[in-house]
Amino acid sequence: MKRIGVFPFLEKPEAVKVAVQLIGLLQAAEFEVMMEKASAERLGRPELGVLDREAISFLDYGVVLGGDGALLSLARRLYRREIPIFGINLGHLGFLTEVEAKELELAVKKLQAGEFTLEDRIMVSAEVTRGQERRACLVGLNDIVLTKGSFARMVRFELLIDHFFTGQLAADGLIISTPTGSTAYSLSAGGPIVAPQLSALVLTPICAHSLFNRPLVVGSNSEIEIKFAAPPLEVFLTADGQECLPLEAEDEIKIFTAPYKTRFIRFKEKSFYHILREKVQQGRL
Amino acid sequence: MKRIGVFPFLEKPEAVKVAVQLIGLLQAAEFEVMMEKASAERLGRPELGVLDREAISFLDYGVVLGGDGALLSLARRLYRREIPIFGINLGHLGFLTEVEAKELELAVKKLQAGEFTLEDRIMVSAEVTRGQERRACLVGLNDIVLTKGSFARMVRFELLIDHFFTGQLAADGLIISTPTGSTAYSLSAGGPIVAPQLSALVLTPICAHSLFNRPLVVGSNSEIEIKFAAPPLEVFLTADGQECLPLEAEDEIKIFTAPYKTRFIRFKEKSFYHILREKVQQGRL
Amino acid sequence: MKRIGVFPFLEKPEAVKVAVQLIGLLQAAEFEVMMEKASAERLGRPELGVLDREAISFLDYGVVLGGDGALLSLARRLYRREIPIFGINLGHLGFLTEVEAKELELAVKKLQAGEFTLEDRIMVSAEVTRGQERRACLVGLNDIVLTKGSFARMVRFELLIDHFFTGQLAADGLIISTPTGSTAYSLSAGGPIVAPQLSALVLTPICAHSLFNRPLVVGSNSEIEIKFAAPPLEVFLTADGQECLPLEAEDEIKIFTAPYKTRFIRFKEKSFYHILREKVQQGRL
Amino acid sequence: MKRIGVFPFLEKPEAVKVAVQLIGLLQAAEFEVMMEKASAERLGRPELGVLDREAISFLDYGVVLGGDGALLSLARRLYRREIPIFGINLGHLGFLTEVEAKELELAVKKLQAGEFTLEDRIMVSAEVTRGQERRACLVGLNDIVLTKGSFARMVRFELLIDHFFTGQLAADGLIISTPTGSTAYSLSAGGPIVAPQLSALVLTPICAHSLFNRPLVVGSNSEIEIKFAAPPLEVFLTADGQECLPLEAEDEIKIFTAPYKTRFIRFKEKSFYHILREKVQQGRL
Repeated sequence: MKRIGVFPFLEKPEAVKVAVQLIGLLQAAEFEVMMEKASAERLGRPELGVLDREAISFLDYGVVLGGDGALLSLARRLYRREIPIFGINLGHLGFLTEVEAKELELAVKKLQAGEFTLEDRIMVSAEVTRGQERRACLVGLNDIVLTKGSFARMVRFELLIDHFFTGQLAADGLIISTPTGSTAYSLSAGGPIVAPQLSALVLTPICAHSLFNRPLVVGSNSEIEIKFAAPPLEVFLTADGQECLPLEAEDEIKIFTAPYKTRFIRFKEKSFYHILREKVQQGRL
Repeated sequence: MKRIGVFPFLEKPEAVKVAVQLIGLLQAAEFEVMMEKASAERLGRPELGVLDREAISFLDYGVVLGGDGALLSLARRLYRREIPIFGINLGHLGFLTEVEAKELELAVKKLQAGEFTLEDRIMVSAEVTRGQERRACLVGLNDIVLTKGSFARMVRFELLIDHFFTGQLAADGLIISTPTGSTAYSLSAGGPIVAPQLSALVLTPICAHSLFNRPLVVGSNSEIEIKFAAPPLEVFLTADGQECLPLEAEDEIKIFTAPYKTRFIRFKEKSFYHILREKVQQGRL
Repeated sequence: MKRIGVFPFLEKPEAVKVAVQLIGLLQAAEFEVMMEKASAERLGRPELGVLDREAISFLDYGVVLGGDGALLSLARRLYRREIPIFGINLGHLGFLTEVEAKELELAVKKLQAGEFTLEDRIMVSAEVTRGQERRACLVGLNDIVLTKGSFARMVRFELLIDHFFTGQLAADGLIISTPTGSTAYSLSAGGPIVAPQLSALVLTPICAHSLFNRPLVVGSNSEIEIKFAAPPLEVFLTADGQECLPLEAEDEIKIFTAPYKTRFIRFKEKSFYHILREKVQQGRL
Repeated sequence: MKRIGVFPFLEKPEAVKVAVQLIGLLQAAEFEVMMEKASAERLGRPELGVLDREAISFLDYGVVLGGDGALLSLARRLYRREIPIFGINLGHLGFLTEVEAKELELAVKKLQAGEFTLEDRIMVSAEVTRGQERRACLVGLNDIVLTKGSFARMVRFELLIDHFFTGQLAADGLIISTPTGSTAYSLSAGGPIVAPQLSALVLTPICAHSLFNRPLVVGSNSEIEIKFAAPPLEVFLTADGQECLPLEAEDEIKIFTAPYKTRFIRFKEKSFYHILREKVQQGRL
């Protein structure tokens, strides 16, 4: 019996209805459905609320009910486990969420029958050290972002790629994005769209005040280092816009492709370019 | 006897020397030199420290020792008085500061002889109201900026120009810049350069997540209104990057050309396009 | 009896039907309808085909059936006469065309009753001289464009604004756009949108290979000069993308706001910002 | 005895002197120097003019005297042979040319001793078919560019990536660039800089009139197809801006990574990021 974790994002009113329906379908298909305590209780199914930090490691699959943001969050939580996941989309077309609410039944049938493919996506990781001490490690499926505080005027920093000093930047920030994140924040800041299969990271400056303000695409084996030229006032490092770490002047930051991937379950051959076209036509890109 | 306010930005070590020299030259040329108390004391000339909020209104001229930032700050402080000012530049070529340290003597001579022209620059003003109550009014020579907090993901707001609903934006922020400010933050965010004589305001979105992400240039008689679609989390309004006002969901913001101008004293006919070319050649633009 | 010139762009099949209807309505409203010979004959109304180059000068109004392109073309043809014109739009929403086919009757009624306003739009002019000789003069309602030939690699030229040397550019070309043209080709090349009432010209480089690649907005009283640094291979000057003049190395080009304006008849208060919003929502901008 | 082809670009006056010096050094180091007839004669060394189309295939190395353009041209001519080449730079710092004139002696010594590395660069290829017939095949080290004629207003075309219809574009053109070409024309049109080692192609629209105007980075195994929606008037395909093929409405274009690479001889470990920084500092990027 396959274990599946159901992670509903219950803020939208219709989410509860869809979640109940999904659980019914999964149990009928002989999956062992597991949830976190709080969600299970909100759905009136406390007996399913068995997922703690340890139990999560033993899931066979994970499914999110919600938008791309909810899927990003699950991807970061399942990091190191590479458990195949997919998303059920309650709103408008997403780049990441695979299944629409009306396709639930078909999706569960296909999952049961093993009729799906796995699509691996690289993730990006940031390691912050101060002197000899490792302070923190952030992981994102979309991006790691260096960003100034609201009151600060800009961040000045040195950028090294593969240990080569590439220049000094003065900017509102710097986005280091995976191909997955290239259609998110990096795009707003002027970055290119990168095909999801490409093993690459995109460096997109945010409002660069300095001469050099072009996005830069490097191989996924490149290592990016950031050092602060002047003691920075209010600088932060964020992952997927969901985690946030305040930085200090002596902090050194290394950013690189994470050693683990996110694995998306794909039920249909829906090309990235197909979604791209639909989004453009809907005026959502 | 003409009254001149001397406003030195004393952080740079050479500033003290230049300030002392400037005061000597001005006094020799029979100007009545006035300073703020703190500056006068730091220069060992406490007898000059007579400028308080009221006395400032009776100045004939103002002179700043420092960069463009110091001049911006004085321009905002002298607002409503339209007192002619100029800047003495201690660092690299500025768009605003007129005189280099080595030209001090000549500048004082020309000021004494009235051999200068006045160049008026429009300023931009923001009025924040909540319900019937007027909460605050900000004024900038460069720009008024709506900006998200460091942790917030974006600001969603409605933009009205001349009472016409122009669209809903989701962005990191919005810059409303004067021509003077068009070579500052607005340029970093992708805005056009605007000739200083043009009576216009530039609206430049910062990292627009929505479809519409183009800079917009409107006449200086246009009124821009910002209303928050969703209750915003952590949004600020800043003037010239130097003043900052936290906003709340019910706040309505009106932005328009300020009723007063900044008047720059110009000793030489150095065109804006000339400075532009030099800055580009120096790699500073 | 008011004279109105009807200029139908008869390529679209429905245009003939609408043209016949329009002529009927105008004659019923006691306008004297005049057409060019070819159009009149195609509509089976040869008796209306009285407009030659001279007669055009005596029109009271002009009306175009077609898109923005047809209106641009009429605006250039009526240059120096400032005859009020409007457009009847057969396709999708235009920035310039005012009336939709279904609103014909109302528009004719309002025209008869004088219930309309006039909206003046500045035009841009280019004068090409070689040595002492004036070679040509182009006029555009949207833009004057300097453009390289298909095989040429780029154009190198010197740019002067108000006689100040602003820099040397190497680019595929340069667009000098009116506010009206700011939503056309200039926008594609990265230029800002400019409110139609602003008296300004926009300089937008096309694929600048040199450092300086920002759009520049100058006052409508500015004069722009272009000189060729190196003998150019295959360079052209175009007006509204409809007229084209091949240039040679010794040519000097002066570009400035034209002394005559285009006058648009406006039947409704439909703001530019309103059209902008609709275009953005339709995904047409 | 190793055969080396010397390809001097003799337009610059100092080129002759450097070429003579280079040939002397190579012969002293026991290389068999071969040239094309015309170059050999211009240098007064007709006996070296033995390179014809066939002999070129048997070269061990090739060396260009000139800028990046000359090296691009040789790379295209040596296509299918993968003969290691390098460039001697007579002007300012190039991204491709490796050796400065003053380093000639050292470079020849290192070449003789085999003290160099080979850096492979992908090339891009375009195949044009009409019906069943293959009309032409272009190859570029920098880029393949679809471009409108000077008089044409824009090109409308359908873009397919990996057989998926990605959208309809209306633009002045489309650049398909290798990482090598990402610092050339693609950069001018707004494309990102791509690290040379990345196996990727960049699609950069030129002045896109349509909604979708973002650069797109795809894997080097992707196939790009272009089909003309409307019969195009004056459209061309160019390779490295040096070869040019006029297209017709029925033409179908396939663009893909070429099966052969250009191999650059590298004598020093001078990182791409190092050159990038120098170029930015010199104001050449």
